[in-house]
Amino acid sequence: MLYAEDLAIGRRFPFRAYLIEQAEIIDFAERFDPLFIHVDPAAAANGPFGGIIASGLHTMAIYQRLIVEAMWSQVAGVAGRRIESEFERPVRPGTTLTGEAEIAAVALRPEKKNALVTVRSYLTDGDKPVLSVSLDAVIHTRPEHRQS
Amino acid sequence: MLYAEDLAIGRRFPFRAYLIEQAEIIDFAERFDPLFIHVDPAAAANGPFGGIIASGLHTMAIYQRLIVEAMWSQVAGVAGRRIESEFERPVRPGTTLTGEAEIAAVALRPEKKNALVTVRSYLTDGDKPVLSVSLDAVIHTRPEHRQS
Repeated sequence: MLYAEDLAIGRRFPFRAYLIEQAEIIDFAERFDPLFIHVDPAAAANGPFGGIIASGLHTMAIYQRLIVEAMWSQVAGVAGRRIESEFERPVRPGTTLTGEAEIAAVALRPEKKNALVTVRSYLTDGDKPVLSVSLDAVIHTRPEHRQS
Repeated sequence: MLYAEDLAIGRRFPFRAYLIEQAEIIDFAERFDPLFIHVDPAAAANGPFGGIIASGLHTMAIYQRLIVEAMWSQVAGVAGRRIESEFERPVRPGTTLTGEAEIAAVALRPEKKNALVTVRSYLTDGDKPVLSVSLDAVIHTRPEHRQS
């Protein structure tokens, strides 16, 4: 398990590849973002993107899946506090997303036994960025005493 | 259909109520945020929140569902550009979320026939805020010529 003290600024956590298919785009959007550009291929073909694109919230949810696998599954996190995303390009069916997370700032708070950590991430389609994310999260500091 | 010129600063779009149940919290998190605090009630009972809480991305997806129903279904939107959320309180199973969106800024761009609009929203649990969201989105201006 990694604690706040283990997260040197600049440390990177590469993401695996994730293929986003049309059925998943429509399924997510029917539940959470039922606009025609996300759920109706025929109408979207005549829309601003010439076809359906993933909901921005769906792309962010995929980012979360990838950063959980790459980073949070091995880091003693407490909770996210703030997240900021820029949607840089539309994500179309059949796109393979990948990316990485990087530790950008660590503010230790010994009195609270945690740290406020800023993690900057991005998702790409090939060499083109599609999503950038800045997350502020609370991460535990290393326990001082351990039972043996 | 509402265009950018129709969105006076201060105009509000109230959200309906949305009951978030434990099964939905676990289902979303198993797909996108499989940390024990979101998917394992027994382990989460001994965790930092004393029980499972919704993924922050799940709460944001519910915000998107509610703002689509309240606002985007009647506004000539093009695309989101940037979204910033603060997670103010944990969202537990059985919570009824509601809230509203408010037009915070409108920058008309006549040469592009659209406007960059900032929409500020929040979700509440009773009188307690749980999520605040600031969204920058591109919205069409009213078409000058119409075919009759």
